[in-house]
Formats: sequence, C-alpha cells, structure tokens
Amino acid sequence: MNILRSATIPHPNNWAGAKPPLLRFLDRCHADFAAESGGAVADYIPELGKADPDHFGISLATIDGHVYEVGDTRIPFTIQSMSKPFVFALALDTLGAARVESAIGVEPSGDPFNSIRLNSENHPFNPMVNAGAIACSGLIHEAKGGGAFEYIRQALGRFAGRELDVDEAVYASESATGDRNRAIGYLLRNSDVIKDNVSEVLDVYFRQCSIQVTARDTAVMAATLANRGINPVTGEHVMTPYAISRTLSVMTSSGMYDFAGEWIYRVGIPAKSGVGGGILAALPARLGLGSYSPWLDKHGNSVRGVKVCEALSSHYDLHMLNRSDNARNSIIADYNIGKSPSRRSRRAHERKILAAHHQDVRVFELVGTLSLANVDYVSRQLAAKPRPQLVIFDLRRVASITRAGARLLAEEFHELAHFHVTVILSGIKRSSVDWKAIGEWTEGLSNLRNFYLLDTAIEWAEDQVVYRYGGAIDFLETTELSEQPLLAGLTEEELTDLASIGTLRTYQAGEKIVAAGDAATSLFFLRSGVVHVTLPDGIRLATLTAGMAFGEMALLETHRSADVLADMAATAYEVPIRDFERFRKQHPKAGERVMRNLAQLLADRLIVANAKVNLLTAN
Amino acid sequence: MNILRSATIPHPNNWAGAKPPLLRFLDRCHADFAAESGGAVADYIPELGKADPDHFGISLATIDGHVYEVGDTRIPFTIQSMSKPFVFALALDTLGAARVESAIGVEPSGDPFNSIRLNSENHPFNPMVNAGAIACSGLIHEAKGGGAFEYIRQALGRFAGRELDVDEAVYASESATGDRNRAIGYLLRNSDVIKDNVSEVLDVYFRQCSIQVTARDTAVMAATLANRGINPVTGEHVMTPYAISRTLSVMTSSGMYDFAGEWIYRVGIPAKSGVGGGILAALPARLGLGSYSPWLDKHGNSVRGVKVCEALSSHYDLHMLNRSDNARNSIIADYNIGKSPSRRSRRAHERKILAAHHQDVRVFELVGTLSLANVDYVSRQLAAKPRPQLVIFDLRRVASITRAGARLLAEEFHELAHFHVTVILSGIKRSSVDWKAIGEWTEGLSNLRNFYLLDTAIEWAEDQVVYRYGGAIDFLETTELSEQPLLAGLTEEELTDLASIGTLRTYQAGEKIVAAGDAATSLFFLRSGVVHVTLPDGIRLATLTAGMAFGEMALLETHRSADVLADMAATAYEVPIRDFERFRKQHPKAGERVMRNLAQLLADRLIVANAKVNLLTAN
Repeated sequence: MNILRSATIPHPNNWAGAKPPLLRFLDRCHADFAAESGGAVADYIPELGKADPDHFGISLATIDGHVYEVGDTRIPFTIQSMSKPFVFALALDTLGAARVESAIGVEPSGDPFNSIRLNSENHPFNPMVNAGAIACSGLIHEAKGGGAFEYIRQALGRFAGRELDVDEAVYASESATGDRNRAIGYLLRNSDVIKDNVSEVLDVYFRQCSIQVTARDTAVMAATLANRGINPVTGEHVMTPYAISRTLSVMTSSGMYDFAGEWIYRVGIPAKSGVGGGILAALPARLGLGSYSPWLDKHGNSVRGVKVCEALSSHYDLHMLNRSDNARNSIIADYNIGKSPSRRSRRAHERKILAAHHQDVRVFELVGTLSLANVDYVSRQLAAKPRPQLVIFDLRRVASITRAGARLLAEEFHELAHFHVTVILSGIKRSSVDWKAIGEWTEGLSNLRNFYLLDTAIEWAEDQVVYRYGGAIDFLETTELSEQPLLAGLTEEELTDLASIGTLRTYQAGEKIVAAGDAATSLFFLRSGVVHVTLPDGIRLATLTAGMAFGEMALLETHRSADVLADMAATAYEVPIRDFERFRKQHPKAGERVMRNLAQLLADRLIVANAKVNLLTAN
Repeated sequence: MNILRSATIPHPNNWAGAKPPLLRFLDRCHADFAAESGGAVADYIPELGKADPDHFGISLATIDGHVYEVGDTRIPFTIQSMSKPFVFALALDTLGAARVESAIGVEPSGDPFNSIRLNSENHPFNPMVNAGAIACSGLIHEAKGGGAFEYIRQALGRFAGRELDVDEAVYASESATGDRNRAIGYLLRNSDVIKDNVSEVLDVYFRQCSIQVTARDTAVMAATLANRGINPVTGEHVMTPYAISRTLSVMTSSGMYDFAGEWIYRVGIPAKSGVGGGILAALPARLGLGSYSPWLDKHGNSVRGVKVCEALSSHYDLHMLNRSDNARNSIIADYNIGKSPSRRSRRAHERKILAAHHQDVRVFELVGTLSLANVDYVSRQLAAKPRPQLVIFDLRRVASITRAGARLLAEEFHELAHFHVTVILSGIKRSSVDWKAIGEWTEGLSNLRNFYLLDTAIEWAEDQVVYRYGGAIDFLETTELSEQPLLAGLTEEELTDLASIGTLRTYQAGEKIVAAGDAATSLFFLRSGVVHVTLPDGIRLATLTAGMAFGEMALLETHRSADVLADMAATAYEVPIRDFERFRKQHPKAGERVMRNLAQLLADRLIVANAKVNLLTAN
C-alpha cells in the first residue's frame, strides 16, 4: 500500500524555453511600449533626424555582470547628454574634487538644459546642463590638452567595457550647428571657468556628444555607476566611489532636465537621457538600465525609455529610497569553542583547560555584505557578553564590505586591542579592494592575526588558551600504544602482541603517509609529531598529535578516502591490516573492543559534525 | 618543549568600559562640536528664544532598534518644521496618493521655506515649505475634522514610539505671531487647496509645530523613515513603504531649505531641520540620527546638527548613493540530493532510484535580505543548469525580502509552474509581512508546497522522485531481523538466538518510545512503521522506516541522548542490553560483527554530516 503517492509529475518538453522572470518583464515592456510612437525625433542637429524611429532596444545589466537584451540593443546611436555624468566623474577623478567643485555648482537650475544663465558666482548651476558639461570638457582639456578627447573616449569605453567610436557625420553636424554652445563657452571663459582656447574645448565637447553607443553599452555604463565605479562585466575599477556617488547625486538633483523633483518622487532611479534617443538609469547596488528609441517628448527625453524606467520602478517597487535591510543579517553563526571546537584531536589535559575556558574564544561567522548597520550589530553583541580573550571573525562568506562597514570594523579592532583582546581573521580574500581599506586602518595593530582557514584560526586560538592556563603542547613527546583511545581497554598482553606486529616508521615534515584512493592495507598509531587528514578537495578533516590513530577506517573500508600528511617530523607504528586480522582472531575480545572504540570515536566525531551543522542552520 | 608558546595575553581590568565604536564616534562628535557656538537661537517666535543654547544632544537609532545617546538627548524641544515629513506621510496614507499629489507639488521651489509663492498651478511647490505643510494639515483636517490634531499627535507618537505632548507656551506664541502663515493659508484656500475653515487648519498646523520631542525621539522617528515605516524600537508598522519612500524623496529634493543640491551632494542623507534646534537624518536601511542644539545658521539649520550629519557621512562614507552589494550574496548553499540527502534512512531500492535521479531535486539555501538583484541571480542559476523536477527554496535564514525581491520570486514560481516544476518552500516565518506579498502573488499556483523544516521538504521531494520512477514506499510492510544493516553478516543461528531474547512491541502514532536522559537499557529493531529521532532542542536527527535500528547507541552509551517517537503505528523488537551482553559472550564473532556494523553506520552518517558542513562552509 502506498499512502503517500501524489499526483504524477508531468514531463515538460521544453525547459530550454524557461527564462529568468526579469528578462520576461523586459520582453513585455518591449512589446507594450513598441506601440508608443508619440513625440518626435530630434532634428535640431540635422544628422540626428536620420535615425530610424522604429528602433527600440532595452538592455539591463546586473551588478554581477549579466546583461539582458531585448530588441535593437546593438544599434549604434550618439550618446549626446548621456556623456555628461561620465565626463563629470572623470573630471572629479582627474583634477580632484576641490578644483571641479569650485568651478561648477551642484544646484538644479530650474532652466532648460541649454540655458546660458549662470549662477550667482557666474559658474554653471550643475554639470548636467550644457554650461556645466562644457565646463567639465574644459577642465579635462586643462589637464590633458590636445589628448583631452582621446582621454574621454577611452574613459567612456571603460564604462562600457569596449572601445567606443565617434559618429563623424553627427560630429560634423554638431559642430556646424553649435553656436549656442559656443556662446556658452565664451561666457564661461569670460567668467574664467574655461581657461583654454574655447574652440578647442568646444571641439572636445562636440566629439564627446558624438560618441556612438548601443542600448547594451548604456546598460553596462549605468551598471558601472550602480556598482560604485566597478564595471560588473569586465571587473575594471573605472572610477572612485567618491566620483560615482557625487555623479549620481547631480543626476538625482538635476539629471532629468526640468522635472528632477518629479523624477525622484515618481521613479526614484538616478537617470540621464540624451537627444540621440538614449536613456540610462542607475539604481545603486542593483542594476543599470539602458534603452534606445529615438521618439522624444517635449522635455527631450525618449518617450519609450521613460516608460521603461517607470514600468521597472513601479512593477518592482524599485524606488532608491525604498530600501530595507536587517542589521542581524550578517551573523550566520556566533559561538564559542565549547560549542564547536577545532578539528584538532586534543589530549586530556588540553581538553580539560579548553572545557573550563571555552568562553575565552568567541567565533563570529559572517556572511553577505558588511554594512555599517551589520558591523555595528556585531560590535554590540561583543560588548554585551562576557569578554573573550580571543575573537575570530570568519569572513569567508563575506562577499563585500561597504566603506562604512570597513571603517567601523577597523574601529572595533582598535577597541578590542585597547582591551587586550586578540582579533583573528579567517577566510579573507586578500586581493579584494575592500580589505585593503581595513588593512590601512589597522596598520600597526599588534593584536591582529590572519589565517586562511577558520579551523586553523580556531586551533591557534585554542592553543593560546591552553598556554594561558599553564598547559604545554609538546609535539616532540612520544606516546605508547597503551595511550591510544582506539586501544583503550586492551590488556597488557594484547598490547604487547599488537606492538610485535607493528613497525615503527619515521616521516619528514610534509611527507604524504597515506594517499586517498590507495588500498587501505594498514592502520597507524601516531607516536610523536603532528599529522593532518585532508580530503582530495582540500578540506581538512582533522589534525592529530601523538597518541591518536589514523588510517583506522581500514578496519571498515578497503580504500583510503583521505590523504594523511606529516605537519612536522613524526613517528608512527604501522600495523598491516592482514596482521591485525590475525591478531583479532587470536584475541576476539580485543577485536570487539577495538571495534567498539572505533564506533565510539566515530560517534564523538558525529556529535561534533552535527553540532556544526546545527550552528550553521539554526535561525 | 613548547614550540608554539606565544607572548602572554595580558589580563584587562575593565571590559565594562568597552564601547561599540559607533558610540565612541558620537562621543567624539559631541566633544568636538560642543565648542561650536556660532549662529543664533531662533527668536522670530518669542518663546523659542528661551531655549538654553548650551544644550546639545546626539542620538542615533539603528534599524535593529538600538538607540545610542550622547549628551542632552532627553531635553524636550519643539519639533517645528521636522513635523512636515511625518504629516506628509500621514496625509499620503490617510487620503491616498492621488488626492495628496494633486494638491501639492514635489519640485524644489528655490525660495525660502516661508515663501508665499505658489507654483504655476497655484499649488504649493512641495510639502517641505510652509505652504505645502499647511496644505497637508488642511488635508488631514478635511479627513478628520476636529480630531485632526489629535490624529497627527498620535501618528507622530507612533514614529517616536511614545506619546508626545504639546508645548502650550510655544503654541500660544506661534499662534500669536503666525500671520505670515495665515496669509499663506488664505491664499491656499483661494486656490482651493484648503477647503476647510482656514483658522481651524492653521490651529492644527501651529499645534503640530509645537509638539515636544527629544533628540532621542527624533532619532527613532528618523530610523522609522529609514526602516520603511516600521518603528525599529516598537516594531510597529507606522506608515506604508510608499508613503515613506515618497517622503524621503521630497526631503531629498527639498528638505534642507535652500541648499538641497548641496546637501545631497555633500552629505547624501535625506534630512529635515526645525528652527527649534532639531535636525533629523534618515539613511535608508541603515540608521536614523537625531540631534538637538539651538544655535542656528543663516539657513535656519542647527549649526552643531549640520556638523554631526556631515561628520557621520564623511567619516563613514555614508552617502546614500554610495551603495554596494553582491548579487551572489544570498545563496549559502546550492546542491542536489546527491550531495546532501534528507535524514531519512532509505531502503536499497529507494536509494537506487534517488542515486540515479539526484539531479531532479535542487536545493537553494538562501540567506540575508532578498533583493531584486539576489533573486534575479538565483533565477539565472536555475535557468542555466539541467532542469530539476522539484526545487526547494530554504528561507529559514532569510531575514527580509524587498518588495522587488518578493515580486521577482513570485514571478519565478510562475515560470517554474509553467514548466511543471514543483516549488517547495521551507523555513518561512508566515507571520512576516514580506511573505504576505509573495502569498498574494502566488495565489492559485498549484505547484507550490510549504514545509516548516528543510529536512522534511527534502524528504517529501525524495518521495516524489521515488514515486515518479515507479518505486513504492510501503510503511505497512514488515521486515525481519535478517534485513537489519546492524545485524548484517550474522548467521541464521545467531539471528535466531537474538530473536529469542527480543520482545515484539507495538506503538501508537505519536507515542514516545525512547526519552532523552533515560538510562539506555535496550536497543530496538524497527519491524514496521516509521519513527523519528529528535534531540531535546527539537532538531530532528533521522527518520527511520522498517528494517532500521534505533536506540543502538546503547551499545556505547549509558544514557539516551535523543527522543524517539512513532510517526505512525509501528512495531519493533526490543532487545534488553543486559541480554544482548549475554548474547555477545556466547557469540563473540557476532558481537564483533555488530560493533563493526555500528561503526560502519556511524561512518556513513559522519560522511553525510561532513558533506553538509562542507556545503555550508564552502566559498
């Protein structure tokens, strides 16, 4: 009788048709908004009027570097005003914030983008209006002279993740019809914002506006803005987080021409459009969107592009100020060595010390992105409970750390140092930029230790506790078979017989004693030194010192499942399994006793392993 | 010889003095900025001039509800313009967005806060200038009539987490000197923005500005804005996320009087100040800051309060557009049942089916906050690999889910349903608001299952696979001792002798067979039915069906470490341990064999437990 049988599961034919739902959503946007054909194609620059108004591409790049594309995402068009944020960021990083911020304001102007009005200091209101953008090109020209445009073109290429070219026809058209921008240029020189030759600066500006991009390019460029200046596709650090966050700020306050307040209120995603039909939107820490459709509304924004931004924001409720998080998120396990010790098999006197002082070592296993809120929460957990002597932060599963989180964590290390608590880090990927910041802020701290493996860190911390309470760990000590837990309960006669079939072996540091996959033909009793047991995939199962057995699974299995290597010079009694079988037949009680001891050892290890599973899966 | 001994660890005297570094930072701000005494105390309302200019309090509330306080954080002062965002949010939630947004704009005005100028539609420019705030009070009056003020007072109290009172002297003073606001009120009635009696509306407004708060209150109120409308101290859902995100939007574009662009550029934290000396700043998903110091600068902002905001932002680089995250963050383990099966001990034919079809069940263990980016990443992992028949999402460690994440996850469930893939959720806290959204969006989906425990979910999924490939699971089947793995290899004679010392027991569904802590005086061989083994803390260790042993640790231990309960009617042979000892003496080979089998079972369990640990700790 089958009381659990459920309805048959149907067999689908075409799993290949399955799509991530975000791509399905973009498909739907493309289908829905392709019908929108209001507005007009820009024609104030004659060459722009030649664009095919039916072209429509939507691309979305994620912060892990995946790019979704729907429709005409590979059709080139000119970047126009969408170049402004990138050149502003470039100016900040090239000339320094002080120079740039003293030349260009950051307040919305309330005027159209091509206004010639300057602010009360005779500076451009902000870098998103033409006056501010021309001032940015002027600053780059100041720094790079005749190489200014090439410098800009290459920087924009790093944002896009590929080399970008100029549409020469549009450039010629821009230049031929650019008198209003020339007027702005001369006015800026009049107020000393532009210091170089105006026509050279304008030439840089016209070329910069004529750079060709695709919807896919603009999505990746936007995602680089959303990802603190790291291109998520190429991994390149294109700009500093300062330049990026300030660029997003001016996009927020002045990016969408005359309705910045409406845009942040309704859509809540920093965005910039260009009269070439492009629009890009960057939602920090989430995604970059790029779209291309030449129909423009009266503000000069792509009609379909605005619809896509609005739909994305409203369908997924993606307003940038609608953020939630949980400060407790980042702690996946918080325990002391009483709950989960290292995998080192310890002798009785060490076990006793560690049991009495298990609260001296506190372990935090952290996960995800460490923000100010997460690190602050950890610091309060530490301040509240009994003081540990050593704190281990395991960071293996920490994918990133915000600058705020890094700074606060460094401050916490200083706080712990002040109270003579040793800080131990494990699992750090040292190449990561995030960790460089922590390194800077913790220079000179002497209470900081670093281990690659958490287990090694716990083992080291345990050793410190053993030393502190007077215990010694003598690796050169030799032990006899009678001290082996696997042989506990055997009579002297049985032990003597067993010793007679063993051979004393000597191993050098680093020597492989047992190899995974080999036939399991003997078992070993470690007499002195240290060995470790490691799975073929590198996971360390145990560290053993004198008095412990290894290769003992030969009693159950025919082949080795793990490597055993000597950590330092070691000696061991090797007992061939065939001889042991004979010994068991002669001493059936001893044979049963060894099996019982083996079962006991396995049961103890199982308790430790299950405790660790429970730590990691508890709520 | 002790080759590892390190420097002695000094013994600190005073761990009680240890502080979270964020509190230390606020201490330092307080000490540094207490010296700043430029500016003037507001005196345009005579009563405000009586404030003690030396008072200075800083409070910071975290999104997990911890409140830091330094200095005069419990001194009451009047809320003034800091009431504006809260009453705007209240209006949105009380009258609906359409009504409020048709009456009040959201563009910055470029004028001082008390400007009487209206926008081109004769509406207030935004809710942060007096005209807009009076319009909000008018809307509340429209909805609540004479109860309007009490309604506002109670709402502000929910933001603060305590009842707030009015400073009657300031109220009288506001009312006596409020002619400019009266003028604005009448102008608003002239353009039909205010529909009720103007002096009644103004009375609400004057009272609302005279509500007394402390720096601590404003920190909690700001943290409620930062926490999507949930007061992190009381846990109360004060406002909807829509109202909160739109309130933060107008604070961003128009909150800090005449320098909104500068404020978002430099500080990047939505903020609002009041002429009473208060300032609040809300960094979404991170923290709320409240400060009190009556010295005001020429813009009407608290001099010290602005310094604190600037220091917090620059020291920790807390600009709201400087966000980072990692889309891969949320997957802590991704495996199939080949790598980590359920804890149900299965019989040979089931094991065979499951081994052949282990890719049919895919398990994602998720962690942290599920955002759009995280869920999208999961959906791509699913789309790319071989199609599973069943997908388990374990959400036990998911602390929260954004609305975008919830929506995308629901869409993924629909996508999977379309391809006839069964979705199984485990670890959901059903009470959570976040999950209600998923529930709404997945109504009617028939491929959705829900289990509290991940292991139960995996077990159920395994059963489906067994059924699908023709296997039956017959819980009423009875088995003999010869089928027990623990007794494998015993001769018929040995089995007959063992059977003779066992007693056949019958258990009802739900009956406790073994209790943790009891003396371990017998072992059991399950003959029919199902039992489960559970630790005292509720963690289920195993589910056993006919043919398995339980209580077998009595062979090693003197006391029970776990409970065993019957899941359904069950029968088992109970063998007293004392009799088993006698049996072993008579049959020493059988005794050794049983011990070896026990060691083998424990070794198998250890492999499963270690595999799970490795899954959860792999990078």
